[in-house]
Amino acid sequence: VRRCEIIAVGSELLTPSRLDTNSLFITERLNEIGIDVRAKMVVGDDLADLSDAIRHALDRVDLLVMTGGLGPTDDDLTRQAVAAVTGLPLDEDPNIVAGIEQRFHARGLDMPAINRRQALVPRGGVVVENPRGTAPGIWLEHEGTVLVLLPGPPRELKPMLEALMRERLTPLTAGAGLYRRVLKVTGRTESHVEEAAQPVYSQWLLRPNPIGTTILAGPGQIELHLSVRMDSSREAARVLDEAVAELRVALGPYLFSSDGESMEQIVGRLLARQGLTIAVAESCTGGLIASRLTDVPGSSAYFQLGVVAYSNRAKTDLLGVPAEVIDSNGAVSEPVARAMAEGARQRGAADIGIGVTGIAGPSGGTESKPVGTVAIAVLGPGREVVRTSWFPGGREQVKLFASQAVLDTVRRLLLERVPSPDGLMD
Amino acid sequence: VRRCEIIAVGSELLTPSRLDTNSLFITERLNEIGIDVRAKMVVGDDLADLSDAIRHALDRVDLLVMTGGLGPTDDDLTRQAVAAVTGLPLDEDPNIVAGIEQRFHARGLDMPAINRRQALVPRGGVVVENPRGTAPGIWLEHEGTVLVLLPGPPRELKPMLEALMRERLTPLTAGAGLYRRVLKVTGRTESHVEEAAQPVYSQWLLRPNPIGTTILAGPGQIELHLSVRMDSSREAARVLDEAVAELRVALGPYLFSSDGESMEQIVGRLLARQGLTIAVAESCTGGLIASRLTDVPGSSAYFQLGVVAYSNRAKTDLLGVPAEVIDSNGAVSEPVARAMAEGARQRGAADIGIGVTGIAGPSGGTESKPVGTVAIAVLGPGREVVRTSWFPGGREQVKLFASQAVLDTVRRLLLERVPSPDGLMD
Repeated sequence: VRRCEIIAVGSELLTPSRLDTNSLFITERLNEIGIDVRAKMVVGDDLADLSDAIRHALDRVDLLVMTGGLGPTDDDLTRQAVAAVTGLPLDEDPNIVAGIEQRFHARGLDMPAINRRQALVPRGGVVVENPRGTAPGIWLEHEGTVLVLLPGPPRELKPMLEALMRERLTPLTAGAGLYRRVLKVTGRTESHVEEAAQPVYSQWLLRPNPIGTTILAGPGQIELHLSVRMDSSREAARVLDEAVAELRVALGPYLFSSDGESMEQIVGRLLARQGLTIAVAESCTGGLIASRLTDVPGSSAYFQLGVVAYSNRAKTDLLGVPAEVIDSNGAVSEPVARAMAEGARQRGAADIGIGVTGIAGPSGGTESKPVGTVAIAVLGPGREVVRTSWFPGGREQVKLFASQAVLDTVRRLLLERVPSPDGLMD
Repeated sequence: VRRCEIIAVGSELLTPSRLDTNSLFITERLNEIGIDVRAKMVVGDDLADLSDAIRHALDRVDLLVMTGGLGPTDDDLTRQAVAAVTGLPLDEDPNIVAGIEQRFHARGLDMPAINRRQALVPRGGVVVENPRGTAPGIWLEHEGTVLVLLPGPPRELKPMLEALMRERLTPLTAGAGLYRRVLKVTGRTESHVEEAAQPVYSQWLLRPNPIGTTILAGPGQIELHLSVRMDSSREAARVLDEAVAELRVALGPYLFSSDGESMEQIVGRLLARQGLTIAVAESCTGGLIASRLTDVPGSSAYFQLGVVAYSNRAKTDLLGVPAEVIDSNGAVSEPVARAMAEGARQRGAADIGIGVTGIAGPSGGTESKPVGTVAIAVLGPGREVVRTSWFPGGREQVKLFASQAVLDTVRRLLLERVPSPDGLMD
């Protein structure tokens, strides 16, 4: 199996507001085992269009991955279209019916009759279990081509694809795999990252196994995607590790992640390893920092307390910020951020206290403190950082940028305390 | 011209880090003049794959828009593929050559010889000027189908498409536009929504101007996308308003948004209109409810306080939850949720208090309280709701589902208090 096409099914993916993003994840995994994605298609919930797209793909590739259209409703037509094109009848699988019924019963509900449609399998197809939803996937080998049908929701699709990779796809491939590494940088613009990284990665293109580099600007961070094609995964890992080490020198402490981990995962790991706890007092970020920290499994071990204090009264009553500090400096000021951090640390009995106060907009800005002005305080054991930054964009972006800056400050403080090889700052 | 396909050309669009986003903009503009996008395709820089995709599209649609592959280099193959499929020869257009030479001269450079390729036009094609780059576009009518070739960079493509819209595409269409409405439902599964809505929307398909309906399951909500093709936007608005009213009857209070607004926007609007304030005490949702509420501009008018209390100590110290209530019921229980809500309301001096405590996972579940168990309390003026729910999925999904359930409970409480026509419950 070398040539693949991906078909995403769903009329919503043909509207001006939706993109098929599943194909990115699928492409990444298939590339790793040397399968080339030759084309991607998006088709609506229309039996004729869908059948036509399947027929066309079957002529050209030896692996066809389809996502979506496996739901229980009238407009879910993937199963029917595959049956129509291949000429295979659809059989109801009693095990699938039982499994779906069980899912509904677990939530105290009866299975609606229409869900029976999800138990239809083209004859000869193998059922791929869906641990996170009612729509099972289907693996079907037909006249030399493999068809893989997967549900559209990414959280259902991903574990199913992983299982298929292990059990069925990898054994069918032979060639060199494409291996990737995702690096993340914060606190620098895309142009700065490009200026620093280009002299490094341009050299990689001259090698026998060139490493490709793509720079992508995301919200609050710049990503560098490295990829290399090699026969062995161990050799690829070694080559990519060396490449990451070169970029670490070029990018310095702005590089915070070298294997796709998020900022909150990295901060969480550093806190857990150092046995420290944290408490957060937020004004303009409105709970986003607490929510990001608590997205990480196991965060209850180090997350002690979060307080979202918009009003001056809440800052005074709940965090013990002296009213005169607010009066003489304004609510958006470094002394107030510091007092908030101190209050969070004390009330949460935590090792590290965070205070953030700013103007997320769209209103509330002044000439001296425009929208996007944010004062940040991080009080750690033995060291504290208090500063004022300005972030561009609308309300949600200011919240995101400010939360990223705060978490990065915590990361750096923890690294300075106990230099750590995989916190990426040496 | 009614049926369109879009082909995006470029091998970089088949990697795990790039998406074709031009098609969103093209779809939006074409929909406005009543042209349906039936399929979208991404093909790499390969003459055989590209020719094959064009041939397949020409069989099925009467407008084919292609983006990319018009540059001067060897891997820019769109012109060649169109010539190969249509059998039309490529002629060099001396005006294009002169124009490209001029662009280079203006920058003090000579035109590289390879740029001559950009002057090739399939015989019969009309040149579309590119004010922002060297690659001109091409408009070609061939055997009843219109082919439009545009360059890939969005800043070049957009003004060229606008010019084509005015001068060529709009005159070819009957003028009926496609109008949309996005409805959102929470607290029901996709199958339940389908069962309730299907008898309603299936009738719409029989009308002279049928309304199309797509049902989409999202995290914590089900969306219904309605679309109708009409000559006048005012008439479309009237028809869609009536359709929404019918669905309101069928879906009842589970329908919370009829024009794309988010749950937090709707709750915020109801709070502001009723002059009420809110305070939130969160355990398992970890600040997500506070963060969602404060995503809304102007939320400082009603958002008083948020407390994220993971530990029992924080619940007792900061929210005044009696230790004996935790001891006798467990931290995940309705009495604790209620005491947390009461504490948030008192300390925030708010009209409405929210308390949420649960097990977001992956660890911490027990047989009687598995991962996903969440106790919710909403104490409002004159009314209170306390209940226990179970939500499926991983940590982030449990957080999201629980936050949605809490905000929906607030919405319903506010609507029962002062029935409001645009809160959608009558």
